[in-house]
Order: sequence, then structure tokens, then C-alpha cells
Amino acid sequence: MSSQGNTKWVYGFGDGTAEGSAAMKNLLGGKGANLAEMSSLGLPVPPGFTITTDVCTYYYAHDQKYPVELEAAVATALAEVEARVGARFGDVTNPLLVSVRSGSRASMPGMMDTVLNLGLNDQTVEGLIARSGDSRFAYDSYRRFIQMYGNVVLGVDHHLFEEILEDFKHQHRRSLDTDMTPEDWRAVIAGYQEMVERELGAPFPQDVGQQLWGAIGAVFGSWMNSRAITYRRLHDIPGDWGTAVNVQAMVFGNMGQDCATGVAFTRNPSTGENAFYGEYLVNAQGEDVVAGIRTPQHLTIAGKVANHSDLPSMEEVMPELFVQLDQVRDKLERHYRDMQDIEFTVQQSKLYMLQTRTGKRTAPAALKIAVDMVEEGLITKAEAVQRIEPASLDQLLHPTLDPKAPRRVVSRGLPASPGAASGKVVFTAEEAVAQAGLGEAVILVRIETSPEDIHGMAVARGILTTRGGMTSHAAVVARGMGRACVAGAGELRVDYKSQQILVGHNRIRAGEIITIDGSTGEIMLGEVPTIQPELSGDFARLMEWADGLRRLRVRANAETPLDARTARRFGAEGIGLCRTEHMFFDAERIVAVREMILAENEAGRRAALAKILPMQQKDFVELFRIMEGLPVTIRLLDPPLHEFLPNSEDEMDEVARAAGTDSLKVRQRALQLHEANPMLGHRGCRLGITYPEIYEMQVRAIFQAAVEVTRTGGQPVTPEIMVPLILSRRELEIFKQLIDRVAAETIAALGVELTYMVGTMIELPRAALRAAEIAEQAEFFSFGTNDLTQTTLGISRDDAGSFLPDYRRLGVFEQDPFATLDAEGVGELIALAVERGRGTRPTLKLGICGEHGGDPASVHFCERVGLDYVSCSPYRVPIARLAAAQAALANTAA
Amino acid sequence: MSSQGNTKWVYGFGDGTAEGSAAMKNLLGGKGANLAEMSSLGLPVPPGFTITTDVCTYYYAHDQKYPVELEAAVATALAEVEARVGARFGDVTNPLLVSVRSGSRASMPGMMDTVLNLGLNDQTVEGLIARSGDSRFAYDSYRRFIQMYGNVVLGVDHHLFEEILEDFKHQHRRSLDTDMTPEDWRAVIAGYQEMVERELGAPFPQDVGQQLWGAIGAVFGSWMNSRAITYRRLHDIPGDWGTAVNVQAMVFGNMGQDCATGVAFTRNPSTGENAFYGEYLVNAQGEDVVAGIRTPQHLTIAGKVANHSDLPSMEEVMPELFVQLDQVRDKLERHYRDMQDIEFTVQQSKLYMLQTRTGKRTAPAALKIAVDMVEEGLITKAEAVQRIEPASLDQLLHPTLDPKAPRRVVSRGLPASPGAASGKVVFTAEEAVAQAGLGEAVILVRIETSPEDIHGMAVARGILTTRGGMTSHAAVVARGMGRACVAGAGELRVDYKSQQILVGHNRIRAGEIITIDGSTGEIMLGEVPTIQPELSGDFARLMEWADGLRRLRVRANAETPLDARTARRFGAEGIGLCRTEHMFFDAERIVAVREMILAENEAGRRAALAKILPMQQKDFVELFRIMEGLPVTIRLLDPPLHEFLPNSEDEMDEVARAAGTDSLKVRQRALQLHEANPMLGHRGCRLGITYPEIYEMQVRAIFQAAVEVTRTGGQPVTPEIMVPLILSRRELEIFKQLIDRVAAETIAALGVELTYMVGTMIELPRAALRAAEIAEQAEFFSFGTNDLTQTTLGISRDDAGSFLPDYRRLGVFEQDPFATLDAEGVGELIALAVERGRGTRPTLKLGICGEHGGDPASVHFCERVGLDYVSCSPYRVPIARLAAAQAALANTAA
Repeated sequence: MSSQGNTKWVYGFGDGTAEGSAAMKNLLGGKGANLAEMSSLGLPVPPGFTITTDVCTYYYAHDQKYPVELEAAVATALAEVEARVGARFGDVTNPLLVSVRSGSRASMPGMMDTVLNLGLNDQTVEGLIARSGDSRFAYDSYRRFIQMYGNVVLGVDHHLFEEILEDFKHQHRRSLDTDMTPEDWRAVIAGYQEMVERELGAPFPQDVGQQLWGAIGAVFGSWMNSRAITYRRLHDIPGDWGTAVNVQAMVFGNMGQDCATGVAFTRNPSTGENAFYGEYLVNAQGEDVVAGIRTPQHLTIAGKVANHSDLPSMEEVMPELFVQLDQVRDKLERHYRDMQDIEFTVQQSKLYMLQTRTGKRTAPAALKIAVDMVEEGLITKAEAVQRIEPASLDQLLHPTLDPKAPRRVVSRGLPASPGAASGKVVFTAEEAVAQAGLGEAVILVRIETSPEDIHGMAVARGILTTRGGMTSHAAVVARGMGRACVAGAGELRVDYKSQQILVGHNRIRAGEIITIDGSTGEIMLGEVPTIQPELSGDFARLMEWADGLRRLRVRANAETPLDARTARRFGAEGIGLCRTEHMFFDAERIVAVREMILAENEAGRRAALAKILPMQQKDFVELFRIMEGLPVTIRLLDPPLHEFLPNSEDEMDEVARAAGTDSLKVRQRALQLHEANPMLGHRGCRLGITYPEIYEMQVRAIFQAAVEVTRTGGQPVTPEIMVPLILSRRELEIFKQLIDRVAAETIAALGVELTYMVGTMIELPRAALRAAEIAEQAEFFSFGTNDLTQTTLGISRDDAGSFLPDYRRLGVFEQDPFATLDAEGVGELIALAVERGRGTRPTLKLGICGEHGGDPASVHFCERVGLDYVSCSPYRVPIARLAAAQAALANTAA
Repeated sequence: MSSQGNTKWVYGFGDGTAEGSAAMKNLLGGKGANLAEMSSLGLPVPPGFTITTDVCTYYYAHDQKYPVELEAAVATALAEVEARVGARFGDVTNPLLVSVRSGSRASMPGMMDTVLNLGLNDQTVEGLIARSGDSRFAYDSYRRFIQMYGNVVLGVDHHLFEEILEDFKHQHRRSLDTDMTPEDWRAVIAGYQEMVERELGAPFPQDVGQQLWGAIGAVFGSWMNSRAITYRRLHDIPGDWGTAVNVQAMVFGNMGQDCATGVAFTRNPSTGENAFYGEYLVNAQGEDVVAGIRTPQHLTIAGKVANHSDLPSMEEVMPELFVQLDQVRDKLERHYRDMQDIEFTVQQSKLYMLQTRTGKRTAPAALKIAVDMVEEGLITKAEAVQRIEPASLDQLLHPTLDPKAPRRVVSRGLPASPGAASGKVVFTAEEAVAQAGLGEAVILVRIETSPEDIHGMAVARGILTTRGGMTSHAAVVARGMGRACVAGAGELRVDYKSQQILVGHNRIRAGEIITIDGSTGEIMLGEVPTIQPELSGDFARLMEWADGLRRLRVRANAETPLDARTARRFGAEGIGLCRTEHMFFDAERIVAVREMILAENEAGRRAALAKILPMQQKDFVELFRIMEGLPVTIRLLDPPLHEFLPNSEDEMDEVARAAGTDSLKVRQRALQLHEANPMLGHRGCRLGITYPEIYEMQVRAIFQAAVEVTRTGGQPVTPEIMVPLILSRRELEIFKQLIDRVAAETIAALGVELTYMVGTMIELPRAALRAAEIAEQAEFFSFGTNDLTQTTLGISRDDAGSFLPDYRRLGVFEQDPFATLDAEGVGELIALAVERGRGTRPTLKLGICGEHGGDPASVHFCERVGLDYVSCSPYRVPIARLAAAQAALANTAA
């Protein structure tokens, strides 16, 4: 109706028709598109029109001028609204009033929101009195309009309006708005107008056209205000998307007892239950429901009962209108095929729909709704799978605090590993082991953790540190173990000596019980009851659908029997990374490990390694049995040796005694092993180069374990032996020869067949670059994206805390590159290594085993570059399974 | 003459002709090719033939069998030799005797060398007596042959021969070989033959054909002995090169007083002087000259005089033959156009040439010879430039120990930075500064050095450390400063407390004088006189030619006035890297720097920075003045802040006092700044992100200095401001905005014009990958190959010492990747960044400023990828200039 030139700038809707539709969100904004859609569906939408986002774009591209055709288009659209409503804009006897709202593609705070009751002036207010028969309502509407328009369009400070009203009430002893008489409001209106004129040097506009264009201009102007710009920068919303403007005939929920207004969800957004869920108020405007001045009432009788409310439900008060609304609910769900968040108004017993949009929901609700809708035939399984945010599964997999239980929060740290846990405070790993041995639940509290603490972390219910970020040792290990962890709680002062934590005025002593919530970062005194997760039902059904849709295999990073069992429970299809060093920290074997490190020569090391071999073999046997023939990738020793050395004087003495040497020598060796940058130092396969006997022992333990499992009736195992930190073909060749030799020796000694694979981590940029040659020696690559990120970006994960927040604030990184794979940098190296590696060896098996393996965005990347599997910590396996399915669907669609 | 089938296996020479030539080195080996060449030149070469390296290759490819045509080819070639000599192989009256020698492409120890006098047996020895008229000579020759052949061909232990001779002499009271009568030798021969038959179970071969094929087989066999294999592996010589066999008619220098043998260089190999230089002995075989039993005599009168010899020269003893030899010398030099190393024999007053090859020479000699030969018209300037090994210039640029002075070497470390220096032992940087202030020469002795020691290193003559490798802090900084440095002298025990060094039984106390030689690693007691380098004359001329040939510009890494002046003296065309942090360590400003680090907030930091600004500005003014308008690239602060904090308790207290705080706070701040991996930590531009005021101060100091220099009549400066450790476009954009803002402020405040460039280091793999985008913000890239090597390979330079040696031994690295650029890994990233960077900005200026900038092989790489300049430490500037010229020539040729 308003197409001029080549571009249609204005789209009308109302009376069961519309020029736009829900598909035109980019052009009409979310609100405008859905108003059009509802109108086309025949729902009772007050007529109106949408000025497109193209106008906004044009406006900013042309020195803040509108297209020449716009004025006429708006006039035509407005005339159509007048015709549909049967009232005229600015008419003194029967005035059309409109609302003006912004509406962009994405919901965006900072923008001008709403001006209501536009079209009122000193004359038309009389028309409204005549039409409504309620002068109090009409004057109240007018003063609301002046206040709203004055503030958001004319830029008058809202305090100035509030002062006038307060002063009036004070002088005339009116305490509530409802105490005000029509004459009172008239006086306030006069005061407002006077003040506006004083402030702006011009009277409040009486011309309704001027009012309308002022409001339209204010919406477009607010697109470039600083709050909106900041929000867009933070959320990566392009400035040229623009906003639309929605002009719509006013309907009033506050015109009397036959009026009402409300908001509702088509299903319960907390639980997902398929029940109408919402609130309403009789004789009120929308803002009253939200403002909390009056207590909203429930929509349904069921809702009222469930929430122990005394106030009558809409189902009771307006039964016919409720039925109409319930039919709308049904129609919208069937049409949109998703749970909707709606707004409605009843004006003089007539229902009007003001908004619909897809409703936000909790993770359990999302799951239930998706599964229910498949069963109701509303959506396909693929759609259900795509509707669940994989990261939200975290909420479903860990114990959560009982929301009804009281809690005494004393401080807050980073939510480093989800789940909630209560237990006695202990300050050392040893104490954790001791207390846990007595059956106590413990929370291990450390300033920061190191690999030495792992056995303590393994037995603790939760870990709390005062230093370190989301990727600190504590956080990473806790996530891997599925332990709750709050990290970097900087307000806490931990005093190991006096065995207490000081926080504010609180003092928490060792042995006292605290509760931590790793999903929120909260630290609470005492025990707060928790709720255990449920892995069956809807969850199981959705995961099964996801598994049917994905191409990527999902493995887990696991080395302990507990982790391996958890991984299988969560659906892991193998182990992608078994970190053998974690087996070295066990209390009974650390002494032998230290003896090995302190040995003066190869013979001494071999003697110590001979003690470790049967223990490692036993570990592998157990792991292979649990995995029942599923693939297991075992990484040979990776961290620098000094990580195994004791730190405290006492421990040094103990090690010296055990190793039959003096503590001075232990200290000297520790000093000798000290490195300026251990991350780039003598670690990974570099240990295997200088001390091949260590790797030889590990390889022998693996092969002998494989043989033992098969001989004792277990599923045959094909161990995948992974050499870490490789940087050239020749380097891997040396290890391939060693492994092949030990295999041959094992075969000869035990008289058995043995199948195995040899591969490498790709975790150095050079390895990615030389992948073609390295693939000559490797049967598989596993991308170690933690280290590859560290080296490609030159950022130490342990030290990044001091500057990464600034980097994200300034927009250098959109995401934490240790959480979500840096696709542009690290990703290019991975893509290149994939291409070069497969170029040499088309059957090359490709996976990822860094922290990124459980991050949905990174899983999408892995799908795009064609990896065979991702491997992540056991608790993230379901997330990876779901993300892999979504990635496969996205890739098929693309 | 012996071409059969398609392959010619044997090449004859003699009588002024030859089938081969010097160009056929690959086929004939070095010795055979040059014998053929000399023969073609008409020089008196005893006739002979060469069995090609192809035979060797065939031999090993065919189960150690010869080509079927070989036997006939050898027979034909031998007949030709017989005809030329006028004697017959195996003839009892007039026997032809031959030598059999190996000869591969490259000279190679481990191979069988020589069998002389082959063709002698119990009958032919009588013919030799008849022909020579000297039975003593003939029997001596026979017994030498049996001994040599028995040992190297038959594998009989040489001690068994020596025992027989010693026993005989002892029994018959002969003390010298010359005391032996012909009968004596006959008896010894009989004893030899008996012993050989006893040892081998077969008589010594009397058949001369059997002797010849035995010797040929021994040469080919020796190609695969373990010493040869090891040597080839270490020197990267392919096994399939093979060796040739040279069979040549014998001539005898030991047949009487009209016989002689000698070795000579066509010019003096020590000084390069254009004078014949050699030694000879009358009546001797070649091995006697080398063996040192008799004192060799000088060839020329001049040589005799110069060396204070009493023995007559050949010029005097055999004047005619000397003239002939001198003519040969002249002919060879004109023909080969290079200094030759020759062997000759005079047999009965006739001169024979046995060998010629390009002679080895010292660095000064190489320089003088190259320059002289250009002036003599023998070679072109380009050839002269190509003949000098760039690394050898190091010898010419640093003081060297007087070779005649006595020295008491007590230990040896790594030759970490060339040059020799003597001075008093000091153990701290402070003491070095104090002593140097008193005019003392000092050697700074540390277990290892850190950035804190730089002011001490700057004033020391030399640096000695007991820990760390060729790329340790001490080594890198010392090379940069041109200070002599011996690093990692592990035998020395430095005891700071008692202020002494223990080494073996020696104790060196503080204040005692030692001398170190950074070119050899030697550590000497007392002072050893040194010789200062000469930068004019031949050196200057050669460098001028090199400059005329190169495309790459050469800059220096320099920040102190001394370094900058040195750089210019050595021909630097600008500064490629001015490390501003070095300016922070100065004693008077470190306090302000520490105050800045300890400040609690930005205001505090700004206050401290305000004190530093004028000092930095003064530094830049001085630098700009010295560089007189040449480009100066200034890198903003790079190292982590904790490097500036004090280490010792005393210093901490001092800083606390100066900063008006308590030492506890200083310690806490130090702890807070501590990092697990500082190389990957809060450093580089990350400091500028968190503390922009630091960079702002530096940029302001640079601009104000530029203005000051121009205003006071200096050459206008266009500073190149370089932001370190960039990893993305956005990051650099933030700094570009900061720099542009400060520039605008300076222009506004001072009312001047200002030109400058903004660029970045490319020293992280991600920066190389994202070079296209980064070039949108950068006007230049400087490849920081030290850090780029560390991150690409994941190797910390400081920690590599514990495994790099094993990596080189096992062949993972051919070169130290911190000395010579890893072209395959790091190089690919550089090439990619060059391509992507220039793709965005064709005028992008590209350079390198890591340690590699002064490494010849790396300079070749820089030429190949098309960089604009290299930048290196001042003392390596001439090396880089020469290497750049050679690289340009190589690239043009390719």
C-alpha cells in the first residue's frame, strides 16, 4: 500500500491480513514481523504498520534524512489504520491513539522502547473522555503520554516530571495515584506542560503529526546512542542491521473492570510442562504487571493452586476471554511450533494480542518441551536436537542446589566447574585423602592447585581456590573430573598456617562445613541440600536422537577407573586421551617416580622404572577392561619431570630417605630441573629422547596389559599409543622404532599377536606445518589444542589471567581462546594439518583432545574440517554428542 | 679408451693429455679430477688412471660385484700407463710400480688412503735394484709395500710389523732406519712374509694382478667401513656418492740426493701474502715430510729467512727445479684462479706433480687473497665476494689473542661470543660498574646472567658464565654488545659468598686477572696480549664490493650510543631493533621504573613515568643524532615487568625505601608478577593493553626526541614505532590509535610536522597467519625470529640446553634452530606472512630482527623470501652485508 519508487518502506497489518510475515524479521524487526504474522493468522491484533529497518539504514547513510517517499507512505498506512479502527488521528471527537515502538532483528537494550497514547493533546483528550466516558482515565493517559514523550523523545529528565507529581501529591495529601481526581491530573498536566516549555524553550507539541514524527525520529536516533552501540559491539551485532518502528493503534487494559492486561507462556518455562502459564491484572496497563506495584494474578486455576495464591485467576474472572486466549495459545504453538511468550490486553471485554515471541526457558524445560513436541508431532527429532543449547546440558549433569533451601552466601568466585557440593574444609591434598578415607565429604581449599594435589582433588567433593581463572589448573582438572569448583575467589584469605579462611567478618576453620556452587561461583556457610541429576527419560531420548544424527565420534579424556566409568555412562565411544602422568602421582608410586628422577644414570632409572611398570600395567588392565574393546589412546609421559618432585622441605627429606640419598642432592636436582618456561621446556617426547627408558617402560606396560586383558577373557584391545609434543618426522620415527621394538619383544616373549597404532599429538605449530611428513610415521593425529593455542597465540594459560579480561573487554578476543577454539589462528593450522596429513595418508585418524573437545562452537569447527572424533572430559561428553549432531545438521544444511 | 657398454668406467691421464677434467669431480673424485686437469695442462703428472665413483655405486648396488667390463677396462688403462712409462707391470727386469689411492668428491677421513710401491714381489724387487742401482732403496721400498699392503689391504695389525722391525734393530743394534743395510732389509722382509702367512694362513701375494685388485677392492670396501659411515652421517654426505680409485705410476723422492719431495701453497695460507710457501726434503718420500722425523726445509730463501731456519732452501739446493716448480705454481694459479695446495716429487732431477687442490687458509688470508686476485685480474669482484665465508669475518672483527704469546689454559667453556679479553675477575654487575669506573678492565663472572646484569656486562671486557648454552642470556647479549663471552664453563665452580672460582686445583679470587677467548672457549690465568682488528684495507674493499652486489639492506640491533656508533662503523644502514627496555635498567632510572611497577593505580604509574620520560627522550635524541636520519625502529616495552624488580632482599628493601613503601609490599608485588611461563605471559604489547600509560610515555618520548633533533639542526627523523607480540589486527589497531593520538597531541603542542611509521613484530604463529589483516594496520613487519622460533617449535631458548644436544645428535635438528632459521617450520610461517602482508599492502616494509639476522644461512633465506632488510647485532653487520651479497648472487644464479 505504500510502495513507492522501487522500495517498500512501510508494511501495514490488521483485520486478519498483513503485508509482512514472520519470515521478514530482518526487514520488519522481530516485533513487527510477529505482529504481521499474528494478524495474518486472524488473531485479534490492533491494526498498525511497521516502518522497515531499511529506512533506518537509509537514514544513517543519508545524513539522517528519510527517503522522500516515506512521508506519503506513513500517511497512507495511518489512513488505513484509521479506517480499520474507525477513528481519526488528531480528531477531537474520536481520536485515534497509537503506540510507537522500536523493533530490531535481535532484542537490544539501550534502544528507545515505547511511547504510548500518542495522539493526545489538549483537544483530543476531550474526545477520549467522550468516547471512554471516563475523564480520570483520559487525563491519566494524557499525563502519562506527556511524561513518556517528554522524557524519551524530547529528552527531559524524568525526575522533573516525578517532582511535579510528588509535590502535587504532597501539597494535596494524595498518597496513591488512585487517590488522584480528574482535576488533580489536569493540574499535573498543566504543571508538566509549563515545565517542558521552561526546559526546552518551546511548548509541548500539540500537533499530533509532529508528535508522531518526533517519536519515529527518536526511535531511529536511539539506534546510534552510546548504550546501543556498546551493546552491539559486545554482542557482535552489525550497525547496519538498523531498527524498525512499529506504529499501532492503542488498546487499553485500564479502561475499567472489563479491561485487563497480561503476559503468558504457552508452556511452563521453568519445568517445560505443557500447561498454560501466565499472569494478568484487571484494569491495568502492561507496565503495571511488570512494575510490581500490584500483585499479578494467575491465568489458570491450576497455576493459582500450585502457587498457593488467594487471588482469583483469569480462568475464573473472565472465563470466556480465557477460553479465547487459550485458543490463541493453541494456534500460536501449532503455528510457530515452539513455546511462545505472549502479551495481551482486554479492552472492554475484547481480547487483543500485542506480542508473541519464542519464549526463554530453563535447560530442563527446553529438554522437556523439545521431547514433548516431537511426541506431539509438532517438530522433527532433528529440530528437537537443534533446539537444545549444548552448554545448557551442564545444568542437567551435575548436582544442583535445592532452590528451596536457604543459603548463607559469604563470597563468590568464578563458576569454574559446574555442580554443587558440601563438605568439610581441608587445606591439603593429604588431609583430603585422610578425611575421605574416613568417609567424610570434603571441600579442598587451596590458594591454587598443582599436579601434586590431584589425588586430593579426586577424593574431594569440590575444590575452592583463591587464585587462578577459568582455565587454571584447578578449573581444568575439576571439570575433567566432574568435580564442582569455584576458582579465583579473591576475597577469601587462606592461611595455611592457622588452618583457616578469612572472608569479610567470617572465619572458616578447617573441618567446618561449607557449600560451593560451581555453576554460580557462590560460597556458602554450612550444608545446603542438593538435587541429583537424572540421566534417563527426556535426556536419554534426546541424546539418542542426537547420536543418530552425528558423524563425529565422541571420546573422553580419562585415566582413572572412575573417570572411565563416568565417561561410558555419559556415552563416550572410547578414550581419546589417557594422561599417563596422572598415574604417576598416586601416593604409593610417587616415591618410585621420584627415585627414578633422582637416579644418577640410566641403570638407576631402570631400577626405579621396574618398580613402576607393574603398577602402570595394572592401571591399563583396569582401563582396558572398563572400555571393553573401545579404542583407548594412551599418551606417553608429558609434563616436565620437576612437576613430580616434592616442594616442601619435609617432603624433600622424605624423598631423600626413601631414595637413600641426602636432601641436599634432592634440592640440587630440583634446582637443576627448574626451568624458565617449563611449558616450552624439557617435557613431552623430549623426555623420551633424553630418557628413552621411561617411554620404553610405559610402552611395555601398555602391551603387557593388552595381552593380559585378552588372555583373561576380556575384549581384545588395540591400544593407540600417542607421542606428545612431536615437531618433526624424524623425531616421531625415533619413537616409532622404539615402540615397534618393544612390541616385537613382547610378541616374542609372550608368544602372542598384538595389534596397536602409533600416533602423535599435533600441539606445536611446526607439527601442523610439517604434518605431511609426520603422517609418514603417524597412524593418527590428535590435536592438542590447549598447547597449540598456547604456542600459536604465545599465551600461557596459567598466566593469561592478568590480561585476558582486558583483551575481551577491548574486543581483541570475542571468546576465551582456551574455552572456544580460535578458528582464525589455531584453526587454520589444524585445517592445514588435516589437509597435509591426509594428503600423505588418506586413512589417517584425526581427533582433538584439548579442552575444546567439549565446547560446542569448537565441535562445529571440528565437524567443518572433517575430524573423525572429539575427546573431552567425561562430564562434557553429552554436550559434545549434542553439539556434534547440531554441527552435522548445520554442515548438511550449508 | 675403456668405454664398454654404455658406461665409461675408467679414465686415463698422463703425457699432457687426459680423458677427464677438473669439472668431473663427481665422477672422478677430487684427486682424480685434478690429476686429469693437471695432465691436460701439460704439467708433469706421472701417468695413471681413475676408476670412477660409478663403479663404487655399482659395486654396492650389485652385491659387491664389479661391472663385467671393468677388468678389461683396467687392463687397457694399465697397458697405456706401461706404454707411457716404458715399463711393464710385473716385469722382473723393468717393473712398473703404482700407487693406489682413494678419492671421493669431498675429502673424507676414515677411507683407505694410499698403498705405495704396488707391483713389487720377490722377483720384481730385483728389477728395481737393477733399474735404480740401489739395493738398499729397493728392499726398503719392498718392505714398506708389504707393511702398507699387509695392513690396509690384508688387515694385519701394524704392531706386528713394527715388532719385527724393532726386534731386528734391537738384536742387531741398529738404531735408525738409515743404519739398516740391504741385507738387514731382506731379513726383515722375510720376517714380514713369514708373519703374514702365519696370520692369514696364506702367503703374501706375489701375483701383481692380485695385488692390484686387492688394493682396488680395499678402497671400495673402505667406503662402507664404520668410520667412513659415521663421518658421512655427521657431515651429511650421501652414501651413494661413492669413491673413485686412482692408480698411478710411482715416482720416487727417495732414490738419492737428486730426489726430493715436498708440499706447498701457492700463497701464504696464514697471511695470504702472494709468496710461494712450502717445505721439502731431499731424498725422502712424501710421508717423511708429514711424519716430522726429519725437519722439513723451506722452499724459498725468503721463507727460510723469515722463519730463521738454518737449513738450505730448495731455491738454493735445486735452483732449476725450483724455477720449474715456481712456473707450475704460476700456471696452476692462473688456471684454477685460486690459491692451490700442491704435492710434488723430484725423481732423479725430474719434477713430478702429484696433487693440486684449493688450499685451506685463515680468514685474513682468504680476504687478502680474494682482494689481491681481483687486483691481479684473476677473478671478478663477485667471485671475491663469494669466496669469503661470512662467518669467518668474526675472526677479523674482534680482538684476538696474540698467537705467539704463552697461555695458561685452566678450563674451557662454549665459544659464545668471539673476541678475546683480559681483566680483573668481578662477580656482580655492580662491582663491574664500580671497577670499570676506576678504569679497570674487568671480566664479569656469573653462574648465569639476567637482564639485571646488563649494565655490568656493558662495562665489562668479557663475560664468563658457568651455566647456559650458545643462546643463553649471557651469550646473546654479549654477541649483541660485541663483548667476548665464554658460556657454560661447567668445570668452574663459582662461589659468590667467598668471592672465588674453583677449577681443578686452581683457585681464582676476585680481583685476579684472567683472559678469556670467546672464539675458542678457553679460560686462561693472567693476561694474554691481544691484537686489535683492522677494518680498513682489504676488509673495507671487499665489503664495498659486497655492498655493491646486495639487495637486502642491513641494519643493526642497537640501543646504546656505543652500540649505535659501532653499528655505523660496521656499515649498518639503520637500526632495525632498538630495545627500549634496555634503557630501563640504567642505574639511575631503575628506581623510577620500579616505582612505576609498584604503583597502586594509574595515577601512581603516571607520576613515575613522568620521571622516566625525559630520560628516555634524551636517549632517543642521542640515538637519532648518531644515526643522522637513517631509519630507526624502536620497539615499545617488551619484557614482563617482574624482570625489572629486584631479586635480593637488600635490593627489595632499597626499592621499598625509595618508593616510600614497605618491603613486604615489594615482595608481594614481585610474587604477584611471578609467572609460570613468562615467555608466554604478561609481556610485549600486553603490557600496553593493561598499562597504556607506559606505551604512551614511550611514544611521547620518541616524538619529542624527533622534534628536538630536527629543531637543533639534526637530520630529520622518521621514527618507526614497533609494537611487539601482536597477534591480531584489532590489537594493533588499539596501539595505532594510541600512537596517532600522541602524535596529534605532540604536533598540536609543539606546532611541528611529524612523520612516523607504525609497525609490528611478527613473532607469534598467529600473527604470521593473520598477516593479511594485521597489514591493514601495520606499515612494516619485523620478524622476531627468536620468539617465533620459540613458539613455532614450542622450545624455550633458555631451557633448550637440556635436550637440544640430543636432538642434534639424533639428527632431529641439523642446526641449532636458534642460530640458523628453521626454514621448514618457522620459514614457512615467514613466507606466508610475507605473501599475505604484501597482498594487503604492497608497500609493506619487511625485515627480520632476531638473532638469525646475522646468520649467513638465515640471510640467504631472507633473500629468497624477499625481505627488505635484515637487522643483527652490530658486530655481525659485516657478516650480514657479505652474506646478503652472496645470497643475491646465489638468487640471481638460481
